[in-house]
Formats: sequence, structure tokens, C-alpha cells
Amino acid sequence: MQCGIFHTPYNPPGRTPKQVFDWSLEIARVADEAGFADFMIGEHYTLAWENIPFPEAIIAAAAPMTRRIRFAPMAHLLPYHDPATLAIRIGWLSQVLEGRYFLGVAPGGHHTDAILHGFEDIFGLPPRQLEAMDLMEKVWRGKPFHEKGKFFQAGFPGPDTMPGYNVEIAENGPWGGRDALEIAMTGLSMKSSSMKFAGERNYSPISFFGGTPQMKSHWNTWAAAAESKGFVADRSRYRVCRDIFIADSDEEAKRRAINGGLGNTWRNYLFPIYKKFGLFDGIIEDSGLKVTPDTIDENFLAEHVWLCGKPETVIRKLQKLVDQTGGWGQICANSHDNLDDHKAWNESLQRLAKEVVPYVVGVPSQAKR
Amino acid sequence: MQCGIFHTPYNPPGRTPKQVFDWSLEIARVADEAGFADFMIGEHYTLAWENIPFPEAIIAAAAPMTRRIRFAPMAHLLPYHDPATLAIRIGWLSQVLEGRYFLGVAPGGHHTDAILHGFEDIFGLPPRQLEAMDLMEKVWRGKPFHEKGKFFQAGFPGPDTMPGYNVEIAENGPWGGRDALEIAMTGLSMKSSSMKFAGERNYSPISFFGGTPQMKSHWNTWAAAAESKGFVADRSRYRVCRDIFIADSDEEAKRRAINGGLGNTWRNYLFPIYKKFGLFDGIIEDSGLKVTPDTIDENFLAEHVWLCGKPETVIRKLQKLVDQTGGWGQICANSHDNLDDHKAWNESLQRLAKEVVPYVVGVPSQAKR
Repeated sequence: MQCGIFHTPYNPPGRTPKQVFDWSLEIARVADEAGFADFMIGEHYTLAWENIPFPEAIIAAAAPMTRRIRFAPMAHLLPYHDPATLAIRIGWLSQVLEGRYFLGVAPGGHHTDAILHGFEDIFGLPPRQLEAMDLMEKVWRGKPFHEKGKFFQAGFPGPDTMPGYNVEIAENGPWGGRDALEIAMTGLSMKSSSMKFAGERNYSPISFFGGTPQMKSHWNTWAAAAESKGFVADRSRYRVCRDIFIADSDEEAKRRAINGGLGNTWRNYLFPIYKKFGLFDGIIEDSGLKVTPDTIDENFLAEHVWLCGKPETVIRKLQKLVDQTGGWGQICANSHDNLDDHKAWNESLQRLAKEVVPYVVGVPSQAKR
Repeated sequence: MQCGIFHTPYNPPGRTPKQVFDWSLEIARVADEAGFADFMIGEHYTLAWENIPFPEAIIAAAAPMTRRIRFAPMAHLLPYHDPATLAIRIGWLSQVLEGRYFLGVAPGGHHTDAILHGFEDIFGLPPRQLEAMDLMEKVWRGKPFHEKGKFFQAGFPGPDTMPGYNVEIAENGPWGGRDALEIAMTGLSMKSSSMKFAGERNYSPISFFGGTPQMKSHWNTWAAAAESKGFVADRSRYRVCRDIFIADSDEEAKRRAINGGLGNTWRNYLFPIYKKFGLFDGIIEDSGLKVTPDTIDENFLAEHVWLCGKPETVIRKLQKLVDQTGGWGQICANSHDNLDDHKAWNESLQRLAKEVVPYVVGVPSQAKR
């Protein structure tokens, strides 16, 4: 199994953009040195608790500071970008990273971001994502075209596009060509339409954890969609995001998680979101306990929602989840603010990479879908 | 007088995005250490000779490597961006830089970039710039609004925007507030409409050098427009871009300039552009020579177009230009590829900052418009 970072991030609203930026670069360096495979960065425009509107700024700044880790915006919200501008910037940046880059795309799921962009709500966004992606693919082909869609327009200059105007065109397509560019999408709710969208296009699936029923649903939806279009549904491409905290003992891990950034995010931000959208349902089902979302406390979180404990405990829980779900390729640690305690959080990440992940078999050799 | 870098940049098409990126960061570090005030970076999507489609990527990466120098995209081509996305990203990045940031805006002047973005030509772009800027200003105000324009749309969420949905909104406006954000525009042709646009809005003027008649025209146009709206036309805000090469002797400077990246750019790229758009006219008039654009050679360039020589020579030429034009606040060195000879070019930059600019009076105390 590989490990990655999902850097939404969760930061208390009081943090400044500079603090979030510097913190992001620190996490990238720590993760690169510890052996993490991927560092994924969210894109949100209005959310004080998840305040990175510009994942590429962090990717570009982290590039000269890191050696092996791959970066991805996860995800570029396609309705909020000019598709030609975004396509060229993605290609150019993937070349700057010499391939240590992959791409996340999404339609945008936050109402306040939609309002910022002049929409009434988020419901009209998916067709815009579809058209934007289609135009980006055409730009990446680098062949002359000109298209006015319903929402966007794009083109590509060629020798005949503008007679008498002979300018050498920059080669800003993706590093290694379009086929070498991995594209991925995240799923959150049990019935994630993104998983179907991703599977049909051979984009990799990423689950935000919501219990084994949701994980199975995400995988099955993605795999069926992929196979319906003739793609191979390979479990090693499947990434799963979890809240993770590792320390010397289970007690210490639980105490630090509850009292640190992780607990702070849940108390002040995630609890209401998870309750509102029913995201605890699968986790409660897994636990076998007779609890309701309203009675969930930090002890329940530490035991059933977070992967929290000494390395052996986290290995055991991960391996159990593999057995229950059929497995996946990369466990991604969600980022929670650690600016008041850099050391404990960074050590937790290092231990995930060095003391946990090497001992988990993520995709059992007998795994079938 | 201050000095700055204008990093269009001019790079031979064979350079990779990674080479251009690394080179840009090197120039930023050298300029910061030498005492340059500003580092401005172009934005072009299709031009193999000016291949940075993503100035913010370089600004973000250079931020942790530098201490005092200010950065600007020069310019963001507003018709090619979603204005809400761009406004938030500008604000957030200016906060990451803690104010070491200013903003360039432009309508876009290259036909192949326009074609990439689905336009037939560049002539419809200016009204889009105007509407985009208007929406960006509204986003920066951070007050609820919702507007569908002719080309774009934007809004801002507020407590009443979406009843029942109470999310803390990130504060991603410009560092220090909108009034603290300097905005600038460049002018190239003799009758630059950008200078009028800039003056009327209190944006700073920047001239690409085209001789004293053009410089005077740029300043007069900008100053008249500024004063027509009640703004003070302060010459210290005026930046002028030149090709500059400094060495121990005039002979060495000329030889290295002609044989290095500067000469290479002119031979292979700028000559036809300058001839096509009549950009030599003012320079020829200044020279007093009976030459035509077709007979201009490298010796003419080194003497009349470039500021090329030992420090004393460049000081003398700059001071003469101040006397002829009334003066300006910042001399900006255009970037030309130096990857085959880092040392000589970097030394030339260092000498501009340390041995030339401190000895030039850019805005004479008696200067009036």
C-alpha cells in the first residue's frame, strides 16, 4: 500500500493565507522525505475552514523543495475556470514538475463558491464540468479547432488559423502526452455520481471515508462504469482518505488527536456537515453500536471515524478494512491544522509512511472486484 | 530611481517549461539580493518565445526564496479568466506575499492566444477586460451581490444569500484592503489606449521603450487621463522597460549582448515584430540617423535600442533620457534567456542595481508634467 496526503486542508478560520501556505509547504517537505507517494490539495474560494483557492500556487512553490512526491489539485472546479487557460496551465505545470503531477477535476460542491461565481446554487454545475473537460481535451490535442459551446469556448491556432501570422506555438500539453496524465475524482456521499463519471472516463477514484458500505458502493460504481467502457478496474488505483493520528500508544494518540487540530476541526466544523449530509450512517453501521449521529462523541470518533493509535493498532484497523472491502492502493491522510503542535503531527505522518503502510497489504493478490 | 525586472520572458522555443521556471526563480533571487524593487512576469498561452502561461506559479515559488522584492503578473489577461476565480486568487496570493505583490491587467494582444480562447481575433477583448475588472472590484468589496454581465458573472455570498446555510466566509481580499493594491498596465504602441484606461482608473503606467516620442506620448496620455478623474499624475509611479546589458567596458558589453540571449532574441524574434508594428520609428527619430527599419543592424540596436555598455555609459544614457522625457520612477530590465551564460547576465543585473541606478536621478525635483 502507498500513502498520500489529502490537504483539503482543515484550518481554523483565524489562520492567514501566509500561514496556510507555509504550513502546506512544510507538510509537502515532510511527506516527500518520509516517502509519501502523493500530495493532493483542495480548491475552495469562500470557505474559511478550507482556505486554499489556489492549489497550483502551493504545487509550484513545493516543486523545488521536493524530489519524489507527486502533486495534484484535488480538485480543479471546472465550472469556475476558462477551460483553455486551465488546460494550458495544467500542461505547463505538469512539465515544470516533469511528471510529478496528476489532475483532479470536480464540478464544485459548495454553495458559497457557486454564489461567488454568480450561480444561484450548485445544481447547474455538472454540465459545465462536462463541457469544460471536453474543451480541455481538445486543447491538449494541440490540433487546430474552434468551438463555441453552451457555456465556454476554446480553440487552437494552426498554420491555417490566421494566414500571414506565423508565430511558433508553445508546446504546453501535459508532460509525456495526454495519455500519461492521470486524472482523478473524489466521492463522498453513498451514491456518488462522480464515481460513475470517473469510471466511464478512466479517471482514478478517491473516497472520502464514510464506512464500508460507502467504500464498497464507490468501488462498485466506479468499477462497473470503467468496465462498461472497456477499461480495467484496477484496485491499486483506488485511493481512500482517512483522518489518521499515530503516536507511541493508543492513549497518547487519542489524547493528542482529540486535543489537537483533528479534534478541533470535528468539534467546530465537520460535525454539523456530517450530520446534515448523513455521512455517519455507514460508519455507525460498521460499528455495530446503537448510536445516532446526535450522540456521537469524541470517543466514538477516535475509535470508529479516525485511524488513531499506536502503529500496530492502525495497521490492524487498516488490514481489517482491506479484508472487509477488497482493498485499495493508497491510504491518504487528511490534513488538519497542526500549527500549534507541528512536531506531533509531522511525526504521525512519518510513522504512517515508515511504520504502518509498509506492513499493510492494500490489494490482496486474490482480490477480484 | 528604482530598478525592476520585466520577465516577459524572451526564451528560445527549445527551452522547456522546467528550464524557464528554474531560470525565473534564479533571476528572482539574484534581483532580490541585488536590491531590485519589482519583478514582473508576463502571461502568454501560445507563444513559444515568451512561454510563461502561469506567472502566479513563479510568484508563489519565488515567495519563500526572496525577502524584499515585489512581484506582479504583468499582466493577467482578463478576458481569459473567470473574474471571481481570479479576484480571489489575486487577493489570497497578495496575502501570501504579505503585500509584496501588485497586479498587472491587460486585454490580451496576441492573436494566437485569442484563438486558443475561442475568439476569431483580439478586437473583441477590451470590453471583456472592462467587465471582468468591474466584477473583480465587486468581489474584492466582499459585500453580497449577484450580477450577470454580458460576458461574465460573479457574486458574493452573504448572510441573506442562502438562508439556512451558515458558512464562515474566507477573507481573501487584497492584502491591506483594495486601496493598498497597486494595479498597473503596460503600453507599447505610440497611441496606447491602455495608457488612457490606466490613467482614468489610477493604475500605474509602464512603457515598453520605443523612443522619446512614444515615452512622452505614453506619459502625457496617462497623466491627462489621471488628472481628468482627479488623480495625481506622479512621475515616480511611471516604469520604463529597456533591454539592458552592462559589463566592464562598452566593447565587452556590446559583444556579450550581441552574442548572448539579447542578440539572439532580436535576430530570431523581435526584429520582425518591431518592423511589422512600426516600433522602431521613434527610436530612429531619436537617433537622428537616416536609416530605415530594414537597414537596422546589431550595431544600431546596441547603440540606440539597448542600454548597453559600462556602468558610466548606461548612467549617462539613462540621465539623458530623463532630461529628454521629464523622468520616471523605475527602470525595468527586460529578461532575455541567459541559460548558456548565467554569470554574465546576472552580473549585468547586479551592476544595474548597484552601480547604475543609485547614480541616476529619475524624477528631477523640478519635474512637472
